[in-house]
Amino acid sequence: MTDDIKVAVGMRIKEIRLALGMSQEELAFKSGLHRTYISSIERGERNISIINIQKISRALGVRPKDLLP
Amino acid sequence: MTDDIKVAVGMRIKEIRLALGMSQEELAFKSGLHRTYISSIERGERNISIINIQKISRALGVRPKDLLP
Repeated sequence: MTDDIKVAVGMRIKEIRLALGMSQEELAFKSGLHRTYISSIERGERNISIINIQKISRALGVRPKDLLP
Repeated sequence: MTDDIKVAVGMRIKEIRLALGMSQEELAFKSGLHRTYISSIERGERNISIINIQKISRALGVRPKDLLP
């Protein structure tokens, strides 16, 4: 049960990133997070915090709530 | 900058909880989290994770995204 939100958020971030034609490196740079961390988030492996949700949403140009189910 | 999402999420949780006429104790019980943790989240002091966002949203009967700006 608890893993589904990690997977859902990871898929959502990847979906928006790819739609923007943005690489993981670029998203990492724009959000101030490490590329390997972005990669593990997208694989649904991270119980990410709201501050990092905010950093990623800003880098993608969407609202924080847009990254959650 | 980073504190604003903690405050926004805390206010949103409190707003929904009160609208439901639910006490912090009841929300704590329903979400499986400690009451003092719920209290500090509502004061905007916690960089809460998505799994805890999911637990609280289920206890409030809303979607996880409904708790974020």
